[in-house]
Amino acid sequence: MSANRRLRVENLQALMAQKDLSALVCRLPENVVYLTDYWPHHGISVAVLPREGKPILFVPEVEQEYTQSEWAEVVPFGWGLLKDKELYENYRLLIDSVVASWNLKGKKVGAELSFEVVAPSYRIAEPVVPSGPWNTLLGEIFAESHLVDATPVLHEVRAIKTGYEIEKLRIANSIAEKAIQSTLKELKPGITETQIGALIEYKIRSEGPGFQGAKLVRAEAEVGAGPVGSTKGTLLVPSTTYRVQERDLVMIELATMVDGYFSDLTYMAVVGEPSPRQKEVHNALLEAQQAAARELYPGNSFEAPDRAAREVLKRAGLDTYFVHITGHGVGMRYHEPIPLLAPGAKGVLQEGMVCSVEPGIYIPGFGGLRIEDNVLVGANGPIFLSTPRQPW
Amino acid sequence: MSANRRLRVENLQALMAQKDLSALVCRLPENVVYLTDYWPHHGISVAVLPREGKPILFVPEVEQEYTQSEWAEVVPFGWGLLKDKELYENYRLLIDSVVASWNLKGKKVGAELSFEVVAPSYRIAEPVVPSGPWNTLLGEIFAESHLVDATPVLHEVRAIKTGYEIEKLRIANSIAEKAIQSTLKELKPGITETQIGALIEYKIRSEGPGFQGAKLVRAEAEVGAGPVGSTKGTLLVPSTTYRVQERDLVMIELATMVDGYFSDLTYMAVVGEPSPRQKEVHNALLEAQQAAARELYPGNSFEAPDRAAREVLKRAGLDTYFVHITGHGVGMRYHEPIPLLAPGAKGVLQEGMVCSVEPGIYIPGFGGLRIEDNVLVGANGPIFLSTPRQPW
Repeated sequence: MSANRRLRVENLQALMAQKDLSALVCRLPENVVYLTDYWPHHGISVAVLPREGKPILFVPEVEQEYTQSEWAEVVPFGWGLLKDKELYENYRLLIDSVVASWNLKGKKVGAELSFEVVAPSYRIAEPVVPSGPWNTLLGEIFAESHLVDATPVLHEVRAIKTGYEIEKLRIANSIAEKAIQSTLKELKPGITETQIGALIEYKIRSEGPGFQGAKLVRAEAEVGAGPVGSTKGTLLVPSTTYRVQERDLVMIELATMVDGYFSDLTYMAVVGEPSPRQKEVHNALLEAQQAAARELYPGNSFEAPDRAAREVLKRAGLDTYFVHITGHGVGMRYHEPIPLLAPGAKGVLQEGMVCSVEPGIYIPGFGGLRIEDNVLVGANGPIFLSTPRQPW
Repeated sequence: MSANRRLRVENLQALMAQKDLSALVCRLPENVVYLTDYWPHHGISVAVLPREGKPILFVPEVEQEYTQSEWAEVVPFGWGLLKDKELYENYRLLIDSVVASWNLKGKKVGAELSFEVVAPSYRIAEPVVPSGPWNTLLGEIFAESHLVDATPVLHEVRAIKTGYEIEKLRIANSIAEKAIQSTLKELKPGITETQIGALIEYKIRSEGPGFQGAKLVRAEAEVGAGPVGSTKGTLLVPSTTYRVQERDLVMIELATMVDGYFSDLTYMAVVGEPSPRQKEVHNALLEAQQAAARELYPGNSFEAPDRAAREVLKRAGLDTYFVHITGHGVGMRYHEPIPLLAPGAKGVLQEGMVCSVEPGIYIPGFGGLRIEDNVLVGANGPIFLSTPRQPW
């Protein structure tokens, strides 16, 4: 394992030492990816990290070939077939053996006790989340010990991306953008929102695997078009069977997942030629987005990018239509909590943070626009991981 | 609301009376769908059901137009924009007001305390699950009361489908089968497993919305082909970039979600003409699947369909390759726990249960086959909700 790859685990272990955590027990897919660089298929894998050394990855036999032994000691277990033990019997065996061999009795152990928003496992049709039974098991095993919520520590270390994650995020963004750009070439009156979104997802799913080493690739595209549909895109609004018309604004919100690493983009297009007003509004928004991005340097406040975007929109008379935040962390999840680029957000930007930069304006009767890129806080300022947009 | 629609909520309320539950508080998307026929987009909606009368559905403003007021009293709340309160502040206000107006202090209230496998909300890229913070809130509000795990009650009532659900499941299966059948016509050497799966998902996503009233449609297709790839399909195995060849077996595992109702199908195909041995094995498996389905009548045991399938395969000398269960419940989730068609499963089939019937055989060096349909336990025997297959 290269120094660059190992770095994120070492950073986490340094934090564990500070907090006196002797081990971490993780089941959320996003944390299993973080510790082992393996995106669980069924969501039942467990990663256990000691304060020093490699994690153990406990994984169903059928998934073993996707794991990476440079990252973790992989321990397969039978699951899902008639021959196999019950899942929780296996969980108990695994954790008991770790407690014994790492001598964890009476030590503080971190677990995921306070999540709600999570990244999916590869099998998006059926998430599996550690809830009641898992907490009961951990409570029984660590009764003599102290079970600590490791969520804050995990979010803190995940917020600073190493070169390895940054490269993965570039790949996810590249796969996403190729699909958007080739779909936009086919944009014409009569196609529905759902068809546009389905086409983007299709291209990502069919062409993503194999691209620069990507294996497991998924996408969710939601499209809102026209004066009404595009305005609804302030939050996730499902694509509808509305057929786009000449001069409609088209907003594409796209999550792309590549081996457990996420891209979060919003693209704007117009069917045919944009009107002068569409150009004017789009270009003011783009200016606001670029102004926000320019504030992404180490030591600047979480608030500064948001403030910069609002100032540009105020000068253009559009600030009252900008009703949401400017950005959020992105990487091991579609939305990560650090950093938060919003009015009143407390925090200081650090080199290695990656966030969405996505001011948006939603003008009743006219339409909604949002431009969203994924940007790294570099040592000397912003580094776009997606392709900066051009004025219309 | 028609009597048929209301029936499932009334059945649940009858069970609540038996268990002395004065109300249910649900957040899992599958239970919100069950109570209100609304598939949450972001996964943060709450459905609260009194022992008599309509549920209250607490839903983000942006999602309100998708809700159905015949099913529930819809209470929108602001979420996600700068103007909005924090989510948990709103949750507390909602539940406090319900406790006051329904006079729930000191009464037993059911909540989802022991799930792990869940159905996704529409936004599959980022599941939201009620975990630590939600349990803390419920614990604070119902401190004087008794908070009861309602999971068993919910699974029990969900296992018996009413005519309304059955119709929804037929639609989900129709959407799925149209996409599979049209994709299989395009099957030819050189196409990759990922491309086959992506094409099926594309057709479902682009053509599903609008079909017989369907609105929100998603799919996950995983394809395994050739002597190795098809054999791996015993569990979820991701599609790869393997290019199918003449005479390859192709196994398509497909989850289809339509407005919160699920279809779970496995289709088999051969690239070009099947070999005599492929035909022989396929047709023996089909005979086993049909034998299992014939056992789906009220009063029969959960074990009987599984036993029937194994007997047919034993006569064909193939039973040692049948390494998993015969079926599971399906409907409000990709996999529901009731009924379980497996060796040793305890339980009695009841009219209205819907399950997968999916014997499979996986022969090293030859390939794997599974035939999976969704079948209703009718008053007089099995009623296929998907299309019964034909011999090769």
